[in-house]
Amino acid sequence: MSTTLRFLGASGYEIVGPTFRLLMEPFLTGNPVAPYTANDAPSPDVILVSHAAWDHSFDAAAIAIRTGAPVICPNDVAEKLLEDGVPAQQIRPSIWGVCYAFGEVVVRPVECHHWSAATLKDGRTVTGVPLSFVVETEPGVRIYHFGDTTIFPGMKMIGELYAPTVGILGCAQTDGLPDPGAGSLLTGEMTPDEAARAAEWLGVQEVVATHYMHPGPEIAELRRRVPVYDSSGKRVVHALSGGESLTLEPIPGDYPSLTWGRTSPEWDQDYRPSIPSGDIPGH
Amino acid sequence: MSTTLRFLGASGYEIVGPTFRLLMEPFLTGNPVAPYTANDAPSPDVILVSHAAWDHSFDAAAIAIRTGAPVICPNDVAEKLLEDGVPAQQIRPSIWGVCYAFGEVVVRPVECHHWSAATLKDGRTVTGVPLSFVVETEPGVRIYHFGDTTIFPGMKMIGELYAPTVGILGCAQTDGLPDPGAGSLLTGEMTPDEAARAAEWLGVQEVVATHYMHPGPEIAELRRRVPVYDSSGKRVVHALSGGESLTLEPIPGDYPSLTWGRTSPEWDQDYRPSIPSGDIPGH
Amino acid sequence: MSTTLRFLGASGYEIVGPTFRLLMEPFLTGNPVAPYTANDAPSPDVILVSHAAWDHSFDAAAIAIRTGAPVICPNDVAEKLLEDGVPAQQIRPSIWGVCYAFGEVVVRPVECHHWSAATLKDGRTVTGVPLSFVVETEPGVRIYHFGDTTIFPGMKMIGELYAPTVGILGCAQTDGLPDPGAGSLLTGEMTPDEAARAAEWLGVQEVVATHYMHPGPEIAELRRRVPVYDSSGKRVVHALSGGESLTLEPIPGDYPSLTWGRTSPEWDQDYRPSIPSGDIPGH
Repeated sequence: MSTTLRFLGASGYEIVGPTFRLLMEPFLTGNPVAPYTANDAPSPDVILVSHAAWDHSFDAAAIAIRTGAPVICPNDVAEKLLEDGVPAQQIRPSIWGVCYAFGEVVVRPVECHHWSAATLKDGRTVTGVPLSFVVETEPGVRIYHFGDTTIFPGMKMIGELYAPTVGILGCAQTDGLPDPGAGSLLTGEMTPDEAARAAEWLGVQEVVATHYMHPGPEIAELRRRVPVYDSSGKRVVHALSGGESLTLEPIPGDYPSLTWGRTSPEWDQDYRPSIPSGDIPGH
Repeated sequence: MSTTLRFLGASGYEIVGPTFRLLMEPFLTGNPVAPYTANDAPSPDVILVSHAAWDHSFDAAAIAIRTGAPVICPNDVAEKLLEDGVPAQQIRPSIWGVCYAFGEVVVRPVECHHWSAATLKDGRTVTGVPLSFVVETEPGVRIYHFGDTTIFPGMKMIGELYAPTVGILGCAQTDGLPDPGAGSLLTGEMTPDEAARAAEWLGVQEVVATHYMHPGPEIAELRRRVPVYDSSGKRVVHALSGGESLTLEPIPGDYPSLTWGRTSPEWDQDYRPSIPSGDIPGH
Repeated sequence: MSTTLRFLGASGYEIVGPTFRLLMEPFLTGNPVAPYTANDAPSPDVILVSHAAWDHSFDAAAIAIRTGAPVICPNDVAEKLLEDGVPAQQIRPSIWGVCYAFGEVVVRPVECHHWSAATLKDGRTVTGVPLSFVVETEPGVRIYHFGDTTIFPGMKMIGELYAPTVGILGCAQTDGLPDPGAGSLLTGEMTPDEAARAAEWLGVQEVVATHYMHPGPEIAELRRRVPVYDSSGKRVVHALSGGESLTLEPIPGDYPSLTWGRTSPEWDQDYRPSIPSGDIPGH
């Protein structure tokens, strides 16, 4: 089996595994490279939103209302979704470490060192704690999405504990968006060099560059910098264009999910007897 | 001398040291395993609240009003307590690193990687920065309470700098509470395996499992996983039932408090002449 | 060439490099050691505000309005500045990692483990994510300002990635300010010992003690503790009085800026051809 990841522009992805479909960071309206609109988007099993920035969340409400899909998100995004008419029973605010299952999908929110703030209709600002995510689409495909985090050393722990195989990592700043206010923007939350270091800390085999509409000079720099920090010698960099897809092959012989914290055979038996068993290496 | 720690259910503890009584995370109303109500709770010298979640804070206002005890807490909890009628002079909002003394009690707030949000009477949400705590009840008994943090590598630094001897560590999710919204809850902020790693990083001799009403399968897994990471070979796991007490014996020959940052004999003399002196090992 | 750093009391500094002038954390009104008032302050090229606490931000609005200087700050400070009458085009909210240029000045916000909350005129609280900063005033002078962070291990990463040469580090709590509420204040966000450890983690050659009005016993302790952790053997501690200046000499032979993420000659050529080239050691 395999997993398909389709780039929607900005930080948005549609991820189709053998048994479910994820929609991450839907920003389609006003996005010049989006392959479809909020009305056409295939119905997802769950929508993941990292924080309230409009280029990470704008179409979540419309798609949730149309399709009935649940949304996992920070507190402030939840408040905004509720105001936008998403039924409360579809909304799942969560925080770092607190994993939820949506049918067959297990979502692990992990630390995201960024900000989140939504403006409500009456002008009030509500703030939340942003999320990054680790999701396993099948044994041997564990996808880390950066949310919009800056680099931080705790990424090494995320690599060690949840062993992502693929890292969707920002290395630029979404181009073509209005950025009112003082000064000239120089970088996104991670520079290409920092994304290359993050890939090593997370231990991912495949790097999917993100946080752009059109691949820019950051991609060339990312390709130059990834090998500098790559202790595996086989890390691959992908930089998709809007609408382009990538097939992710599972690591052979891998076993199901670390994303909910599988650690001992007894724990599996006590707690999640429905999860297929297997050897747990490294323990 | 010794210190007694009594479990109140959820993450709540009453801690009685030789010279003072602490109340941590009071959630008694609607808690089926609480040994007493907010009206009966013994009068504490200080109340510690990590964040605004109701299973960590619900009865803080009532007990503070009845007993006059001060409360140390995040900003949003402070705003909520004020609205609930706690006099301003009893409330101490604080943040990571900023230690306060309440009579003989010294409280060190440390990093807590979680969220905090309180809803005011008019429906507005206020957010704050959550806290974990280190408190020394007597020389050789330094208690770390996790607040509700996820695991993070900075726990190693907390272990090194403040040398807690006891770690109250979440390894489950408080059972029996309503959790409206989408999805099925799989984990608390730390899994048993993560709590076992946290115990090693903090360097505590005694682990007190918490964040539950009734001990569940997570406790057995915690007991299996603690030895996997225990470099001391003598780490002990406790899992109390509601109302049950544990006696904490001080580490022999230990000296008073690292929780306020004792580092050199001159500093003690300049700054805290009232603190009993002693040798400062490791410096 | 050289850079001059003038202490304004609390955490405020005026920093004059060869080509621009920075104003950091302006708190002048009601500050007994400020060398000038908000009306007399020299016009800065940019104002940096780490968080909304009044002893870090009080005069930012008045000086921005009078001089037209842009302000880089967290979200909540931006909302407060706008309410106070600062034109939107002068305000730059930003977050960790997202660098902006203001004319010749490049500002890198980095992680700050603290809180930020502003009270608006209608009584509402808005919260934000606090900032620390790294700014290069000339090749070989890279200044880290702590904002108001507690100590955290990620400081090692900041040292490695952005190589600050000077660290403005809190080691006390601003004296003489009202601190209503319960308890007695014992420490600021970092103790002297923690500031000494932070200096080592950041790798700075020069430590500028801060977060006080009048140097107190913390300074003597900081001088005692810095050598304990100093692997370079040549770290220098400064503790300025209000209005006092310090001249910072650049590290000889250093090259321009890591603060915007310079990592490869090709990247320089692709992305920032206007930045003078040079060898990039350590890569």
